Amino acid sequence: MYVVCLLCSATLNILFVGRYVYVSGKWEVGWSRRAAEEAEAVAAVSCSGHGRAYLDGLVVDGSPVCECNTCFGGPDCSQFSASCVADVDSGDPLFLEPFWMQHAASSALLVAGWHRMSYSFHDHSLISKELEELIRKLHAIVGNANTTGRFIVFGAGSIQLLNAAVHALSPHNSSAPAKVVATIPFYPVYKSQTDFFRSVDFQFVGDTSLWKNTSDTTSNLIEFVTAPNNPDGKLNKAVLQGPNAKPIYDHAYYWPHFTPIPAPADEDLMIFTFSKLTGHAGSRFGWALIKDKDVYETMSNYMSLNVDGVSRDTQLRAFKLLKVVTRGRGREIFEFGYKTMKDRWEKLNRALLMSRRFSVQESSPQYCTFSGKVKRPSPAYAWLKCEKEEDKECYRVLKKAGIIGRNGTLFSANSSYVRLSLIKTQDDFDILLHQINKLVGEENGGKSSMRRMKSTVS
Amino acid sequence: MYVVCLLCSATLNILFVGRYVYVSGKWEVGWSRRAAEEAEAVAAVSCSGHGRAYLDGLVVDGSPVCECNTCFGGPDCSQFSASCVADVDSGDPLFLEPFWMQHAASSALLVAGWHRMSYSFHDHSLISKELEELIRKLHAIVGNANTTGRFIVFGAGSIQLLNAAVHALSPHNSSAPAKVVATIPFYPVYKSQTDFFRSVDFQFVGDTSLWKNTSDTTSNLIEFVTAPNNPDGKLNKAVLQGPNAKPIYDHAYYWPHFTPIPAPADEDLMIFTFSKLTGHAGSRFGWALIKDKDVYETMSNYMSLNVDGVSRDTQLRAFKLLKVVTRGRGREIFEFGYKTMKDRWEKLNRALLMSRRFSVQESSPQYCTFSGKVKRPSPAYAWLKCEKEEDKECYRVLKKAGIIGRNGTLFSANSSYVRLSLIKTQDDFDILLHQINKLVGEENGGKSSMRRMKSTVS
Repeated sequence: MYVVCLLCSATLNILFVGRYVYVSGKWEVGWSRRAAEEAEAVAAVSCSGHGRAYLDGLVVDGSPVCECNTCFGGPDCSQFSASCVADVDSGDPLFLEPFWMQHAASSALLVAGWHRMSYSFHDHSLISKELEELIRKLHAIVGNANTTGRFIVFGAGSIQLLNAAVHALSPHNSSAPAKVVATIPFYPVYKSQTDFFRSVDFQFVGDTSLWKNTSDTTSNLIEFVTAPNNPDGKLNKAVLQGPNAKPIYDHAYYWPHFTPIPAPADEDLMIFTFSKLTGHAGSRFGWALIKDKDVYETMSNYMSLNVDGVSRDTQLRAFKLLKVVTRGRGREIFEFGYKTMKDRWEKLNRALLMSRRFSVQESSPQYCTFSGKVKRPSPAYAWLKCEKEEDKECYRVLKKAGIIGRNGTLFSANSSYVRLSLIKTQDDFDILLHQINKLVGEENGGKSSMRRMKSTVS
Repeated sequence: MYVVCLLCSATLNILFVGRYVYVSGKWEVGWSRRAAEEAEAVAAVSCSGHGRAYLDGLVVDGSPVCECNTCFGGPDCSQFSASCVADVDSGDPLFLEPFWMQHAASSALLVAGWHRMSYSFHDHSLISKELEELIRKLHAIVGNANTTGRFIVFGAGSIQLLNAAVHALSPHNSSAPAKVVATIPFYPVYKSQTDFFRSVDFQFVGDTSLWKNTSDTTSNLIEFVTAPNNPDGKLNKAVLQGPNAKPIYDHAYYWPHFTPIPAPADEDLMIFTFSKLTGHAGSRFGWALIKDKDVYETMSNYMSLNVDGVSRDTQLRAFKLLKVVTRGRGREIFEFGYKTMKDRWEKLNRALLMSRRFSVQESSPQYCTFSGKVKRPSPAYAWLKCEKEEDKECYRVLKKAGIIGRNGTLFSANSSYVRLSLIKTQDDFDILLHQINKLVGEENGGKSSMRRMKSTVS
């Protein structure tokens, strides 16, 4: 019987060896087998839940090596570092990584060696029409943007689209460059990027409020409006009005993970990005919804002459991931994202409840059309304030206490503010919470120990 | 016996159902199965050798649709259009597509849903160190560039790196913007891109020769040097000398497909791209080799503030494809590429042999260190000249004869030149050859027919 089984097995296996095999109405893997096996072998490397191995990661003695979360080390990421610091500086959206690990089968993508080698899609564009349709469907499902009558341009995350938009809204061949502004506290890239590219057509001139009652009617005023705002989560609206005021709405965080969705955004120029929607910051994919045809065409030209369109590999991956996101009207991913953020905020608020030294932004509950419920916002960042005069160098106070945030001065705010990222890995959040508990405990004469910490994060 | 086989088969199949299964020292596909099956089903769509279906292509009635080569149509691309025109305008490098179809197993890539979601690699950079090492290995194998002591920056194809290089070589905070030049005939993007970004720090000022004996010693002169040149295939060298002359070497075509490799390029700033190496123009991947640390740092900042680094999806794909390229010291792909280009050139030269109306560039054989043989160049483009005064609007002459090339005026040359792309699909080349044969036949009183055409291309 055993021998017969082996013989049968050998016979059946032969069927898998060819280029591809069609068995009882289903494709069996052939030429793609090796790629599938490689990916599964890498995914199976044990990193103790505190890291992961990658296909293009370091290999030692023929085996892929774990890349561990902050504070964890060793070959399988099981060693916790006692001298560990909570690094909550970056907006790395790894809070969604477990979602994709749980959806391994539906989100896996096999790319053939000859996939889309051409410069252009079949309609001569640089944009996948199927992906464009899926993006419109996504906004319809979530109810966070009106795409009707809007053109779509793809970019490498929102960062490239921000500059393309500034370029497109600036007057060309004019003696007066456009003035670019943002409302404090604002995302530092608005300034650093606009400064770096040193265009004759635009320049960054600072805080929006300084230009509210300007008598200059010859220059265009380009206003970055970030809603929800990075760093403080506020649902900002344009401050400047009039025919020369051109707002760019950065809606990177306008997703149910972070905010109730009161109504679809309906502005002339809106920018969205994968990074804070699916968590794939590394994929570098974003899009702009644009009402005006001339602005659309200039932004498209920008993309052509800057990078010749977004990588078709990235467009394919975005397509695959968005199919998972839009499945079941988006319930799965937004429930996962909101639940994770809500949980982190509850824990953080609880930790700060007894503190008179530190505070974070407060926000009111609002009706969310996506979930059909009244919900409190759960922003990506805590905008922490050191309340006491002696703590006005808040970044340093936190750093001394083992917390690396992002200094408020980088957002053009004052130094009593620090941004803490709440969207990194669960390990990062747990370590942050531990350090905050310790800090508040000290304020109130309490004690804490690394022993308690270890039991939280391992 | 049959029943036993079925039972055994059922038992064995259960092993494949789990997340992943390790059987006799080998991984069997589990969660990656669906992705593998989808890719193989799309690859199995029959497009008669004149097209291909894609995972993110149009789907009709649940089935992926063929995207056909120019002049072919119908559900399976089997219908040849009798009114067909040879479109050899673009530099779409699809001549390498068959190579990747022949290497389906080794070039397939399975991307897990959670692959590299972070903004940065584990060393906090935006660049895969494993890919960087593979690029250095590739240059060592081919012998076409010295990478010793060079920094590497990745970009979205060469196009983004060109502007990043111009930016980095321009003086900042200077009253005199850098003058950017190129030698006619030159790739039109050098001018259009430099003009489009309208920097205060640089401006395009035309043909290199005008600035050879300039008395202006205050401005930087940035010279694009393209070797081999697009459009005419010449191995150009920098014309401008002196402390203010800063050459950018565009080596997009410096691969054995197109030219003998006399020696490794050893310049201060060299740019390479995937597009003309592997044929993956759509992936948007290129790199710069940079000697000067300041230039490297400015170009790295450019990449950060423009796009936050090349998509990690693209870097992963480039890594996978370069592993195939470097296998067996690169023999396979460069033999395939060179053989294809040599064959096309032989046919084109034969077709034009009897013509006094049309000529193409000539080039001398040279010793190729990669192949160890004396070889004639086989450039990506024919730089065709209409020799007669009455044909001086050469683009129109060709268009009338059913050939769409790229007008010499776009390369700042005169209108008696037209660039013909020889690197598109075999169908594109066959149709071009047919139209050329017809045109030369008419010049010599001969005849041709669409019937002969059909037998060539179908």
